[in-house]
Amino acid sequence: MTPDEFRTLGHRLIDWIADYRSGLAGLPVMARTEPGEVRGRLPASPPEEPDGFDAILRDLDEVVLPGLTHWQHPSFFGYFPANASPASVLGDLLSTGLGVLGLSWQACPALTELEEVVADWVRQLVGLSDAWAGVIQDTASTSTLVALLCARERATGYSLARGGLQAESQPLTVYSSDQAHSSVMKAALLAGFGRDNVRAVAHDAEYAMCPQALEEAVRRDIAAGRKPCAVVATTGTTATTALDPVGAIARVAAEHGLWLHVDAAMAGSAMILPECRWMWEGVEQADSLVLNAHKWLGAAFDCSLYYVRDPEHLVRVMSTNPSYLQSAADGRVRNYRDWGIPLGRRFRALKLWLLLRAEGVEALRARLRRDIANAAWLAGQVRGTPGWKVLAPVPLQTVCVRHEPPGVDGEALDRHTLAWVERVNRSGKAYLTPATLDGRWMVRVSVGAEPTERGHVEALWELMRQEAERSPDGG
Amino acid sequence: MTPDEFRTLGHRLIDWIADYRSGLAGLPVMARTEPGEVRGRLPASPPEEPDGFDAILRDLDEVVLPGLTHWQHPSFFGYFPANASPASVLGDLLSTGLGVLGLSWQACPALTELEEVVADWVRQLVGLSDAWAGVIQDTASTSTLVALLCARERATGYSLARGGLQAESQPLTVYSSDQAHSSVMKAALLAGFGRDNVRAVAHDAEYAMCPQALEEAVRRDIAAGRKPCAVVATTGTTATTALDPVGAIARVAAEHGLWLHVDAAMAGSAMILPECRWMWEGVEQADSLVLNAHKWLGAAFDCSLYYVRDPEHLVRVMSTNPSYLQSAADGRVRNYRDWGIPLGRRFRALKLWLLLRAEGVEALRARLRRDIANAAWLAGQVRGTPGWKVLAPVPLQTVCVRHEPPGVDGEALDRHTLAWVERVNRSGKAYLTPATLDGRWMVRVSVGAEPTERGHVEALWELMRQEAERSPDGG
Repeated sequence: MTPDEFRTLGHRLIDWIADYRSGLAGLPVMARTEPGEVRGRLPASPPEEPDGFDAILRDLDEVVLPGLTHWQHPSFFGYFPANASPASVLGDLLSTGLGVLGLSWQACPALTELEEVVADWVRQLVGLSDAWAGVIQDTASTSTLVALLCARERATGYSLARGGLQAESQPLTVYSSDQAHSSVMKAALLAGFGRDNVRAVAHDAEYAMCPQALEEAVRRDIAAGRKPCAVVATTGTTATTALDPVGAIARVAAEHGLWLHVDAAMAGSAMILPECRWMWEGVEQADSLVLNAHKWLGAAFDCSLYYVRDPEHLVRVMSTNPSYLQSAADGRVRNYRDWGIPLGRRFRALKLWLLLRAEGVEALRARLRRDIANAAWLAGQVRGTPGWKVLAPVPLQTVCVRHEPPGVDGEALDRHTLAWVERVNRSGKAYLTPATLDGRWMVRVSVGAEPTERGHVEALWELMRQEAERSPDGG
Repeated sequence: MTPDEFRTLGHRLIDWIADYRSGLAGLPVMARTEPGEVRGRLPASPPEEPDGFDAILRDLDEVVLPGLTHWQHPSFFGYFPANASPASVLGDLLSTGLGVLGLSWQACPALTELEEVVADWVRQLVGLSDAWAGVIQDTASTSTLVALLCARERATGYSLARGGLQAESQPLTVYSSDQAHSSVMKAALLAGFGRDNVRAVAHDAEYAMCPQALEEAVRRDIAAGRKPCAVVATTGTTATTALDPVGAIARVAAEHGLWLHVDAAMAGSAMILPECRWMWEGVEQADSLVLNAHKWLGAAFDCSLYYVRDPEHLVRVMSTNPSYLQSAADGRVRNYRDWGIPLGRRFRALKLWLLLRAEGVEALRARLRRDIANAAWLAGQVRGTPGWKVLAPVPLQTVCVRHEPPGVDGEALDRHTLAWVERVNRSGKAYLTPATLDGRWMVRVSVGAEPTERGHVEALWELMRQEAERSPDGG
């Protein structure tokens, strides 16, 4: 494909995407295809000869589109907001179009330096001190793995340079709330700690980690001859956006020498609002933290910001220095390959740069405030309606609800919950994801897709009532 | 930014990229900015108010562009080819524009199923049997880490579900050639094996791993009470594209129960040419392999294909199953979150799909054959010119060369090599990366950028001679 063919087809594709975004409200939010249906409509073997762009766009419309659940839809209330703001889509297009790679500073200086700049911009925006240095990773899962690897190596005095974790005699232990994201357990297992050495600390009535329970767990492990290594505090848990008390957890961590990692993947975006910063009070005492600019903030996935207080330690854990990557500039520059797992790196900073410049920070703040107000409105409606319950505090944009008809409880209540949410999703008019809380299914309403206005939340609430109340026995 | 603003600005950006690609040959290949120069030209704080697109494009031209080393330039001969083929740029734009996420099959069925299809297309293209199942990861670094984690867990009978690697009594060991990529050592260290338990196996005269040396190393470790766990064979090493003898290594692996991972990150693309498949003969005996479609093949970074023979084992090592990701379809679908580290996943399959459909496989084969012929031509020129040497076999597109003026050797030769390659790079007319081989600097000429034709290689050779021969003392 020549640059001029690219130009022509690129214009068509930009139009296709603009039309897609404009027309989203008219599409069913959730994909309606059955397992294997999309696969079954695609050729089993790759094409020897080129296909025309018309054929490709036709397959896009007829095969791919029906198999999409539309995350950018104004009535998408599932999982979490993953806003691919149009400005950031353009920034990402630029990155791919340039086709440059950051293996080292030398391999593309602007790629590294713009990343330094935008990571620092976000640091300022969320109110962190300049003691923090940042890098863009793909996801919070990876960032948390990097954090636990750094914790492991600090606790063992760089065992990786000797016999590895397998040569350590005293078992290292890791702590998080029992409401922490599944990626914390996954990271701990991949880092080699083992499930027996990962503690799920109890939560309080608001689903936040109980620091007293953490303290007790740490003391029990010490008494049993184990070595407490790391604790992960969550600012905005997945189920309920609960807020672990970072300051209190930091005191336990400091007393016992634990690495403190703050998982603010979801709620980190909200820290651009000064009125929200109490939510992670104490964060300055952490060793590392992650916030996903690709969630609520609006940078297209993947754009996870990972901050550390001791970049030298991070580099010592992650660095490699093969000859073909060495250059005369090495002592004076950042080589971000040594700040994470992959060697090759996209020019991810561009999507964050374009988002911040084309939108301006004040507009992002206004959008997040709109979403918080919409969630508060919904929570008020739910609380004021007989038979409905809000199950957890609503500090941000997620409302955890259940419809509890009189006399329906236990597994019958679970069946009822899963049935009405399924009816909502099948309607195509909105998309919600259920989750368990205290062992029972409930429904998370996650407000915050970029085009979601109050009217969409009102329509959702009407739909929820209609689908839940029509059949109290679980239909 | 509204969809209509996106449409207008998107057209401008597509034009900018088309112009960039058309005009690349006129730009200096290597960035000429000093450390900190790009950073210093950007505002220290983020903008409160939006900037117009004109200002953004102006900064792109004036601040970002001079700081780029142009990987898509026809005279880019550095590192390795990282072709972001225009068709794949469009596929990636589509992915970002759709803004969908694959947390699970349910979260976006087409994202998962198209990935299954294109991963299987590539499997067929490179001549692998249908015993392999594939997934797209970001990079070979990550894929190799996943492979070593899977090896660790097979060798320990899933220690992660118990006390972890730290509870194992017998040290596990890992093997690769001393020419293996730095990511192999990095993966082994991150997985917890420890540097003392990673063996750099000697290479033969062609820089390929010596299977006899591997066998001896394994036996020594067994005799010392250690437990050999995994071996990484490389098809196309970074320095010289050397080809480890996969079949012979597989026999050692089978005898001693080692996990065999094949790192075909670079040369895997060449396996779309039937005449190249002897290069990884024995690959069907491996447990896992990685090939980077984002290198020579042309899919925009990041697009690393990871194949395994036992997906059930992979899923058992990597899986998490939180309630909010469960759905009724789970038993009947692939949940690719359990095939790698990150939970969230981009719709990466689109860039590979568009590449293969818009170009057709026959065109990709022709391009790779062109590059191999160009590298062979260059090697012939070098071999036929007094004072010049080809230092390693040239099975593919990388030619390792040194200019060795009479009487210049040792460190003086290193100074000479680094000086002339620096002059080539500073000229802006071509870009080369030096590396060490047998303890001495040499120059890797990596042919294979998409727009590189024979004329560009001829011009490079003339430039190399001019810059190297003008000053034999390293001046």
